[in-house]
Amino acid sequence: MDFRTTFRPLTVQPEQIEQKSFQIIDDEIGEHSFAEQQYAIVQRVIHASADFELGKSLLFHPRAIEAGISAIRAGKKVVADVQMVQVGINKARLEKYGGSVHVYISDDDVMKEAKRLNTTRAIVAMRKAVKEADGGIFAIGNAPTALLELIRLVKEGEARPGLIIGLPVGFVSAAESKEELAKLDIPFITNIGRKGGSTVTVAALNALSILAERG
Amino acid sequence: MDFRTTFRPLTVQPEQIEQKSFQIIDDEIGEHSFAEQQYAIVQRVIHASADFELGKSLLFHPRAIEAGISAIRAGKKVVADVQMVQVGINKARLEKYGGSVHVYISDDDVMKEAKRLNTTRAIVAMRKAVKEADGGIFAIGNAPTALLELIRLVKEGEARPGLIIGLPVGFVSAAESKEELAKLDIPFITNIGRKGGSTVTVAALNALSILAERG
Repeated sequence: MDFRTTFRPLTVQPEQIEQKSFQIIDDEIGEHSFAEQQYAIVQRVIHASADFELGKSLLFHPRAIEAGISAIRAGKKVVADVQMVQVGINKARLEKYGGSVHVYISDDDVMKEAKRLNTTRAIVAMRKAVKEADGGIFAIGNAPTALLELIRLVKEGEARPGLIIGLPVGFVSAAESKEELAKLDIPFITNIGRKGGSTVTVAALNALSILAERG
Repeated sequence: MDFRTTFRPLTVQPEQIEQKSFQIIDDEIGEHSFAEQQYAIVQRVIHASADFELGKSLLFHPRAIEAGISAIRAGKKVVADVQMVQVGINKARLEKYGGSVHVYISDDDVMKEAKRLNTTRAIVAMRKAVKEADGGIFAIGNAPTALLELIRLVKEGEARPGLIIGLPVGFVSAAESKEELAKLDIPFITNIGRKGGSTVTVAALNALSILAERG
Protein backbone atom coordinates (compact mmCIF):
# COMPACT_ATOMS: atom_id res chain seq x y z
CA MET A 1 0.00 0.00 0.00
CA ASP A 2 1.56 3.29 -1.10
CA PHE A 3 0.22 6.24 0.86
CA ARG A 4 2.84 8.71 -0.28
CA THR A 5 0.93 10.10 -3.23
CA THR A 6 -1.56 11.65 -0.85
CA PHE A 7 0.84 12.63 1.90
CA ARG A 8 0.63 15.99 3.53
CA PRO A 9 2.28 16.96 6.81
CA LEU A 10 -0.16 17.06 9.70
CA THR A 11 0.83 18.59 13.00
CA VAL A 12 -1.98 17.57 15.34
CA GLN A 13 -1.09 14.42 17.29
CA PRO A 14 -3.57 12.31 19.28
CA GLU A 15 -1.93 13.22 22.62
CA GLN A 16 -2.18 16.93 21.79
CA ILE A 17 -5.85 16.55 20.83
CA GLU A 18 -6.58 14.82 24.12
CA GLN A 19 -4.76 17.42 26.21
CA LYS A 20 -6.51 20.27 24.42
CA SER A 21 -9.88 18.54 24.92
CA PHE A 22 -9.29 18.13 28.65
CA GLN A 23 -8.35 21.80 28.89
CA ILE A 24 -11.63 22.81 27.23
CA ILE A 25 -13.56 20.56 29.62
CA ASP A 26 -11.80 22.13 32.62
CA ASP A 27 -12.60 25.61 31.30
CA GLU A 28 -16.27 24.90 30.61
CA ILE A 29 -17.43 22.50 33.33
CA GLY A 30 -18.19 25.19 35.90
CA GLU A 31 -18.94 24.33 39.51
CA HIS A 32 -18.96 20.76 40.72
CA SER A 33 -18.22 18.87 43.89
CA PHE A 34 -16.34 15.83 42.57
CA ALA A 35 -13.18 14.74 44.38
CA GLU A 36 -9.97 14.73 42.35
CA GLN A 37 -10.03 11.07 41.33
CA GLN A 38 -13.77 11.20 40.65
CA TYR A 39 -13.20 14.19 38.41
CA ALA A 40 -10.64 12.23 36.38
CA ILE A 41 -13.48 9.84 35.51
CA VAL A 42 -16.06 12.59 34.95
CA GLN A 43 -13.62 14.37 32.64
CA ARG A 44 -13.09 11.30 30.48
CA VAL A 45 -16.84 10.59 30.33
CA ILE A 46 -17.40 14.15 29.08
CA HIS A 47 -14.53 13.70 26.62
CA ALA A 48 -16.28 10.62 25.20
CA SER A 49 -19.76 12.16 24.99
CA ALA A 50 -19.22 15.91 24.65
CA ASP A 51 -22.03 16.03 27.18
CA PHE A 52 -21.43 17.98 30.39
CA GLU A 53 -24.90 17.16 31.67
CA LEU A 54 -24.13 13.46 31.41
CA GLY A 55 -20.70 13.85 33.02
CA LYS A 56 -22.07 15.88 35.89
CA SER A 57 -24.83 13.32 36.50
CA LEU A 58 -22.29 10.70 37.63
CA LEU A 59 -22.70 9.20 41.09
CA PHE A 60 -19.88 7.49 42.98
CA HIS A 61 -20.22 5.15 45.91
CA PRO A 62 -17.68 6.38 48.53
CA ARG A 63 -15.48 3.31 48.06
CA ALA A 64 -15.94 3.10 44.25
CA ILE A 65 -12.59 4.36 43.05
CA GLU A 66 -10.51 2.68 45.74
CA ALA A 67 -12.29 -0.62 45.04
CA GLY A 68 -11.93 -0.26 41.28
CA ILE A 69 -8.22 0.49 41.52
CA SER A 70 -7.73 -2.48 43.86
CA ALA A 71 -9.59 -4.83 41.51
CA ILE A 72 -7.54 -3.67 38.52
CA ARG A 73 -4.24 -4.00 40.40
CA ALA A 74 -5.26 -7.47 41.61
CA GLY A 75 -5.83 -8.50 37.99
CA LYS A 76 -9.52 -9.22 38.55
CA LYS A 77 -11.65 -9.91 35.50
CA VAL A 78 -13.61 -7.14 33.84
CA VAL A 79 -17.05 -8.19 32.60
CA ALA A 80 -18.64 -6.18 29.77
CA ASP A 81 -22.35 -6.53 29.03
CA VAL A 82 -21.88 -6.15 25.27
CA GLN A 83 -19.08 -6.46 22.75
CA MET A 84 -18.99 -2.71 22.06
CA VAL A 85 -17.91 -2.19 25.67
CA GLN A 86 -15.41 -5.03 25.46
CA VAL A 87 -13.59 -3.75 22.38
CA GLY A 88 -13.39 -0.17 23.65
CA ILE A 89 -11.60 -1.05 26.88
CA ASN A 90 -7.83 -0.56 26.93
CA LYS A 91 -6.61 -4.13 27.47
CA ALA A 92 -2.89 -3.36 27.57
CA ARG A 93 -3.25 -1.50 30.85
CA LEU A 94 -5.32 -4.29 32.43
CA GLU A 95 -2.96 -6.99 31.20
CA LYS A 96 -0.06 -5.39 33.06
CA TYR A 97 -1.76 -6.57 36.24
CA GLY A 98 -2.96 -9.89 34.79
CA GLY A 99 -6.46 -8.60 34.06
CA SER A 100 -8.67 -9.35 31.06
CA VAL A 101 -12.07 -8.40 29.64
CA HIS A 102 -14.91 -10.86 29.15
CA VAL A 103 -18.33 -10.74 27.53
CA TYR A 104 -20.72 -13.66 27.83
CA ILE A 105 -23.76 -12.47 25.88
CA SER A 106 -22.93 -14.37 22.69
CA ASP A 107 -21.75 -17.59 24.34
CA ASP A 108 -23.52 -20.66 22.99
CA ASP A 109 -24.74 -21.82 26.40
CA VAL A 110 -26.08 -18.33 27.20
CA MET A 111 -28.00 -18.03 23.93
CA LYS A 112 -29.45 -21.51 24.34
CA GLU A 113 -30.51 -20.92 27.94
CA ALA A 114 -32.06 -17.51 27.17
CA LYS A 115 -34.18 -19.12 24.47
CA ARG A 116 -35.22 -21.95 26.78
CA LEU A 117 -36.21 -19.55 29.59
CA ASN A 118 -37.78 -17.06 27.17
CA THR A 119 -35.75 -14.25 28.69
CA THR A 120 -32.98 -11.90 27.51
CA ARG A 121 -29.44 -13.03 26.74
CA ALA A 122 -28.26 -10.10 28.86
CA ILE A 123 -29.84 -11.60 31.97
CA VAL A 124 -28.50 -15.09 31.42
CA ALA A 125 -25.05 -13.65 30.63
CA MET A 126 -25.00 -11.93 34.05
CA ARG A 127 -25.83 -15.23 35.80
CA LYS A 128 -22.85 -16.79 34.08
CA ALA A 129 -20.62 -13.76 34.71
CA VAL A 130 -21.07 -13.67 38.47
CA LYS A 131 -19.87 -17.27 38.63
CA GLU A 132 -16.88 -16.72 36.37
CA ALA A 133 -15.74 -13.29 37.54
CA ASP A 134 -16.03 -13.22 41.32
CA GLY A 135 -14.71 -9.91 42.68
CA GLY A 136 -14.40 -8.48 39.20
CA ILE A 137 -15.48 -5.19 37.69
CA PHE A 138 -18.85 -5.29 35.93
CA ALA A 139 -19.10 -2.68 33.18
CA ILE A 140 -22.67 -2.38 31.95
CA GLY A 141 -23.30 0.21 29.25
CA ASN A 142 -26.14 -1.14 27.23
CA ALA A 143 -28.65 -3.46 28.88
CA PRO A 144 -30.73 -2.32 31.87
CA THR A 145 -31.92 -5.91 32.22
CA ALA A 146 -28.32 -7.01 32.80
CA LEU A 147 -27.88 -4.40 35.52
CA LEU A 148 -31.19 -5.27 37.20
CA GLU A 149 -30.25 -8.95 37.20
CA LEU A 150 -26.81 -8.17 38.64
CA ILE A 151 -28.42 -6.10 41.42
CA ARG A 152 -30.77 -9.00 42.19
CA LEU A 153 -27.84 -11.44 42.35
CA VAL A 154 -25.98 -9.08 44.71
CA LYS A 155 -29.03 -8.79 46.97
CA GLU A 156 -29.45 -12.54 47.07
CA GLY A 157 -25.80 -13.03 47.96
CA GLU A 158 -24.97 -14.76 44.69
CA ALA A 159 -22.67 -12.02 43.38
CA ARG A 160 -19.78 -10.18 45.00
CA PRO A 161 -18.54 -7.72 42.37
CA GLY A 162 -15.48 -5.63 43.17
CA LEU A 163 -17.08 -2.67 41.42
CA ILE A 164 -20.16 -2.12 39.27
CA ILE A 165 -19.95 0.52 36.55
CA GLY A 166 -23.64 0.74 35.66
CA LEU A 167 -24.32 3.22 32.88
CA PRO A 168 -26.95 1.69 30.60
CA VAL A 169 -28.78 4.07 28.26
CA GLY A 170 -32.41 4.10 27.26
CA PHE A 171 -36.06 4.85 27.77
CA VAL A 172 -37.27 1.63 29.38
CA SER A 173 -35.74 0.59 32.72
CA ALA A 174 -32.37 2.33 32.25
CA ALA A 175 -32.97 5.17 34.73
CA GLU A 176 -34.78 2.79 37.10
CA SER A 177 -31.97 0.24 37.06
CA LYS A 178 -29.45 2.94 37.94
CA GLU A 179 -31.62 4.20 40.79
CA GLU A 180 -31.66 0.66 42.17
CA LEU A 181 -27.89 0.41 41.84
CA ALA A 182 -27.41 3.68 43.73
CA LYS A 183 -29.29 2.22 46.70
CA LEU A 184 -26.76 -0.58 47.20
CA ASP A 185 -23.95 -0.22 49.69
CA ILE A 186 -21.32 -1.78 47.46
CA PRO A 187 -18.84 0.03 45.20
CA PHE A 188 -20.58 1.49 42.14
CA ILE A 189 -20.22 4.20 39.54
CA THR A 190 -23.53 5.14 37.94
CA ASN A 191 -25.57 8.18 36.96
CA ILE A 192 -29.00 9.72 37.21
CA GLY A 193 -31.26 9.61 34.18
CA ARG A 194 -31.69 7.93 30.82
CA LYS A 195 -28.33 8.80 29.36
CA GLY A 196 -25.30 6.52 29.36
CA GLY A 197 -24.08 3.96 26.87
CA SER A 198 -21.17 1.86 25.75
CA THR A 199 -18.79 4.73 24.97
CA VAL A 200 -19.16 6.41 28.36
CA THR A 201 -18.91 3.08 30.18
CA VAL A 202 -15.66 2.42 28.33
CA ALA A 203 -14.47 5.93 29.20
CA ALA A 204 -15.14 5.38 32.91
CA LEU A 205 -13.32 2.05 32.96
CA ASN A 206 -10.34 3.39 31.02
CA ALA A 207 -10.11 6.42 33.30
CA LEU A 208 -10.02 4.06 36.25
CA SER A 209 -7.21 1.97 34.80
CA ILE A 210 -5.20 5.14 34.21
CA LEU A 211 -5.68 6.00 37.89
CA ALA A 212 -4.58 2.48 38.82
CA GLU A 213 -1.44 2.89 36.76
CA ARG A 214 -0.54 6.30 38.21
CA GLY A 215 -0.58 4.93 41.72
CA MET B 1 -23.70 -24.14 33.35
CA ASP B 2 -26.86 -24.47 35.43
CA PHE B 3 -28.87 -21.27 35.53
CA ARG B 4 -32.02 -22.80 36.98
CA THR B 5 -31.29 -22.13 40.62
CA THR B 6 -31.67 -18.43 40.02
CA PHE B 7 -34.52 -18.61 37.54
CA ARG B 8 -37.44 -16.29 37.80
CA PRO B 9 -39.95 -15.61 35.03
CA LEU B 10 -39.39 -12.30 33.29
CA THR B 11 -41.98 -10.90 30.97
CA VAL B 12 -40.23 -8.04 29.22
CA GLN B 13 -38.77 -9.13 25.90
CA PRO B 14 -36.22 -7.14 23.86
CA GLU B 15 -38.73 -6.48 21.06
CA GLN B 16 -41.27 -5.12 23.57
CA ILE B 17 -38.63 -2.87 25.16
CA GLU B 18 -37.70 -1.47 21.74
CA GLN B 19 -41.30 -0.82 20.74
CA LYS B 20 -42.05 0.89 24.05
CA SER B 21 -38.91 3.02 23.70
CA PHE B 22 -39.89 4.14 20.19
CA GLN B 23 -43.34 5.07 21.47
CA ILE B 24 -41.81 7.25 24.20
CA ILE B 25 -39.57 8.94 21.62
CA ASP B 26 -42.58 9.64 19.37
CA ASP B 27 -44.47 11.08 22.33
CA GLU B 28 -41.65 13.32 23.53
CA ILE B 29 -39.82 14.51 20.40
CA GLY B 30 -42.14 17.43 19.69
CA GLU B 31 -42.00 19.35 16.43
CA HIS B 32 -39.51 18.45 13.74
CA SER B 33 -39.27 18.57 9.97
CA PHE B 34 -37.65 15.23 9.19
CA ALA B 35 -39.07 13.17 6.31
CA GLU B 36 -40.37 9.71 7.20
CA GLN B 37 -37.23 7.75 6.36
CA GLN B 38 -35.02 10.39 7.95
CA TYR B 39 -37.10 10.15 11.10
CA ALA B 40 -36.50 6.38 11.24
CA ILE B 41 -32.81 7.19 11.58
CA VAL B 42 -33.31 10.08 14.02
CA GLN B 43 -35.50 7.83 16.18
CA ARG B 44 -32.85 5.12 16.41
CA VAL B 45 -30.13 7.68 17.18
CA ILE B 46 -32.24 9.02 20.05
CA HIS B 47 -32.90 5.44 21.18
CA ALA B 48 -29.14 4.83 21.37
CA SER B 49 -28.29 8.07 23.17
CA ALA B 50 -31.43 9.05 25.09
CA ASP B 51 -30.57 12.49 23.76
CA PHE B 52 -33.26 14.35 21.80
CA GLU B 53 -30.96 17.31 21.23
CA LEU B 54 -28.45 15.04 19.50
CA GLY B 55 -31.13 13.30 17.44
CA LYS B 56 -32.67 16.56 16.33
CA SER B 57 -29.26 17.91 15.32
CA LEU B 58 -28.96 15.39 12.48
CA LEU B 59 -28.45 16.72 8.95
CA PHE B 60 -29.23 14.71 5.84
CA HIS B 61 -27.96 15.36 2.34
CA PRO B 62 -31.04 15.14 0.06
CA ARG B 63 -29.79 11.92 -1.57
CA ALA B 64 -28.40 10.41 1.68
CA ILE B 65 -30.99 7.76 2.42
CA GLU B 66 -31.57 6.71 -1.17
CA ALA B 67 -27.80 6.39 -1.69
CA GLY B 68 -27.32 4.50 1.56
CA ILE B 69 -30.08 2.03 0.76
CA SER B 70 -28.65 1.51 -2.75
CA ALA B 71 -25.16 0.88 -1.38
CA ILE B 72 -26.45 -1.65 1.14
CA ARG B 73 -28.55 -3.46 -1.45
CA ALA B 74 -25.60 -3.54 -3.84
CA GLY B 75 -23.53 -5.23 -1.12
CA LYS B 76 -21.00 -2.39 -0.98
CA LYS B 77 -18.46 -2.46 1.82
CA VAL B 78 -19.07 -0.57 5.04
CA VAL B 79 -15.96 1.09 6.48
CA ALA B 80 -15.89 1.83 10.22
CA ASP B 81 -13.30 4.22 11.64
CA VAL B 82 -12.89 2.24 14.86
CA GLN B 83 -13.60 -1.25 16.13
CA MET B 84 -16.40 -0.08 18.45
CA VAL B 85 -18.36 1.00 15.36
CA GLN B 86 -17.52 -2.23 13.57
CA VAL B 87 -18.76 -4.57 16.29
CA GLY B 88 -21.99 -2.64 16.84
CA ILE B 89 -23.16 -2.88 13.26
CA ASN B 90 -25.72 -5.58 12.45
CA LYS B 91 -23.76 -7.76 10.02
CA ALA B 92 -26.53 -10.30 9.32
CA ARG B 93 -28.61 -7.69 7.51
CA LEU B 94 -25.67 -6.49 5.41
CA GLU B 95 -24.59 -10.03 4.56
CA LYS B 96 -27.97 -10.75 2.99
CA TYR B 97 -26.90 -8.42 0.20
CA GLY B 98 -23.27 -9.54 0.18
CA GLY B 99 -22.09 -6.63 2.31
CA SER B 100 -19.45 -6.64 5.05
CA VAL B 101 -17.88 -4.26 7.58
CA HIS B 102 -14.21 -3.29 7.57
CA VAL B 103 -11.93 -1.36 9.88
CA TYR B 104 -8.37 -0.57 8.87
CA ILE B 105 -7.06 1.37 11.86
CA SER B 106 -5.22 -1.56 13.45
CA ASP B 107 -3.82 -3.03 10.24
CA ASP B 108 -0.07 -3.56 10.37
CA ASP B 109 0.63 -1.49 7.27
CA VAL B 110 -1.52 1.36 8.58
CA MET B 111 0.20 1.46 11.97
CA LYS B 112 3.63 1.33 10.36
CA GLU B 113 2.83 4.08 7.88
CA ALA B 114 1.29 6.36 10.53
CA LYS B 115 4.46 6.08 12.58
CA ARG B 116 6.64 6.77 9.57
CA LEU B 117 4.61 9.85 8.58
CA ASN B 118 4.21 11.00 12.21
CA THR B 119 0.45 11.29 11.74
CA THR B 120 -2.64 9.55 13.13
CA ARG B 121 -3.58 5.97 12.34
CA ALA B 122 -7.11 7.27 11.64
CA ILE B 123 -5.83 9.34 8.71
CA VAL B 124 -3.75 6.59 7.19
CA ALA B 125 -6.63 4.12 7.64
CA MET B 126 -8.88 6.41 5.55
CA ARG B 127 -6.30 6.51 2.74
CA LYS B 128 -6.34 2.74 2.67
CA ALA B 129 -10.14 2.55 3.00
CA VAL B 130 -10.92 4.72 -0.03
CA LYS B 131 -8.84 2.38 -2.17
CA GLU B 132 -10.40 -0.79 -0.78
CA ALA B 133 -14.03 0.29 -0.43
CA ASP B 134 -14.89 2.31 -3.51
CA GLY B 135 -18.58 3.30 -3.45
CA GLY B 136 -18.96 2.02 0.09
CA ILE B 137 -20.52 3.52 3.20
CA PHE B 138 -18.05 5.27 5.50
CA ALA B 139 -19.24 5.25 9.12
CA ILE B 140 -17.11 7.58 11.22
CA GLY B 141 -18.05 7.87 14.88
CA ASN B 142 -14.86 8.57 16.68
CA ALA B 143 -12.05 10.33 14.83
CA PRO B 144 -12.52 13.84 13.39
CA THR B 145 -9.13 13.43 11.72
CA ALA B 146 -10.49 10.44 9.77
CA LEU B 147 -13.47 12.47 8.60
CA LEU B 148 -11.33 15.47 7.63
CA GLU B 149 -9.02 13.21 5.65
CA LEU B 150 -11.95 11.54 3.91
CA ILE B 151 -13.36 14.96 2.97
CA ARG B 152 -9.96 15.94 1.56
CA LEU B 153 -9.78 12.74 -0.48
CA VAL B 154 -13.29 13.37 -1.86
CA LYS B 155 -12.37 16.93 -2.83
CA GLU B 156 -9.22 15.75 -4.57
CA GLY B 157 -11.17 13.13 -6.50
CA GLU B 158 -9.44 10.23 -4.77
CA ALA B 159 -12.56 8.95 -2.97
CA ARG B 160 -16.06 8.22 -4.22
CA PRO B 161 -18.01 7.04 -1.15
CA GLY B 162 -21.59 5.91 -1.63
CA LEU B 163 -22.52 7.56 1.65
CA ILE B 164 -20.63 9.17 4.52
CA ILE B 165 -22.09 8.82 7.99
CA GLY B 166 -19.94 11.36 9.81
CA LEU B 167 -20.75 11.61 13.49
CA PRO B 168 -17.47 11.96 15.38
CA VAL B 169 -17.67 13.26 18.94
CA GLY B 170 -15.37 15.62 20.73
CA PHE B 171 -13.98 19.01 21.60
CA VAL B 172 -11.21 19.38 19.05
CA SER B 173 -12.14 19.33 15.34
CA ALA B 174 -15.31 17.21 15.68
CA ALA B 175 -17.80 20.03 15.07
CA GLU B 176 -15.53 21.57 12.44
CA SER B 177 -15.15 18.30 10.55
CA LYS B 178 -18.92 17.88 10.41
CA GLU B 179 -19.39 21.43 9.17
CA GLU B 180 -16.97 20.65 6.34
CA LEU B 181 -18.84 17.45 5.52
CA ALA B 182 -22.15 19.32 5.35
CA LYS B 183 -20.70 21.58 2.64
CA LEU B 184 -20.10 18.67 0.25
CA ASP B 185 -22.64 17.81 -2.43
CA ILE B 186 -22.35 14.06 -1.94
CA PRO B 187 -24.59 11.83 0.17
CA PHE B 188 -23.94 12.34 3.90
CA ILE B 189 -25.58 11.98 7.28
CA THR B 190 -24.01 14.19 9.92
CA ASN B 191 -24.96 16.58 12.70
CA ILE B 192 -24.24 19.99 14.11
CA GLY B 193 -22.10 20.27 17.21
CA ARG B 194 -19.67 18.34 19.35
CA LYS B 195 -21.90 15.39 20.12
CA GLY B 196 -21.86 12.10 18.27
CA GLY B 197 -19.92 8.90 18.85
CA SER B 198 -19.67 5.24 18.05
CA THR B 199 -23.05 4.22 19.44
CA VAL B 200 -25.02 6.81 17.47
CA THR B 201 -23.04 6.07 14.31
CA VAL B 202 -23.92 2.41 14.71
CA ALA B 203 -27.56 3.35 15.33
CA ALA B 204 -27.70 5.39 12.11
CA LEU B 205 -26.17 2.61 10.03
CA ASN B 206 -28.40 -0.06 11.52
CA ALA B 207 -31.49 2.09 10.96
CA LEU B 208 -30.47 2.43 7.34
CA SER B 209 -30.07 -1.31 6.86
CA ILE B 210 -33.54 -1.83 8.32
CA LEU B 211 -34.87 0.64 5.75
CA ALA B 212 -33.01 -1.25 3.01
CA GLU B 213 -34.60 -4.49 4.13
CA ARG B 214 -38.12 -3.07 4.29
CA GLY B 215 -37.93 -1.94 0.69
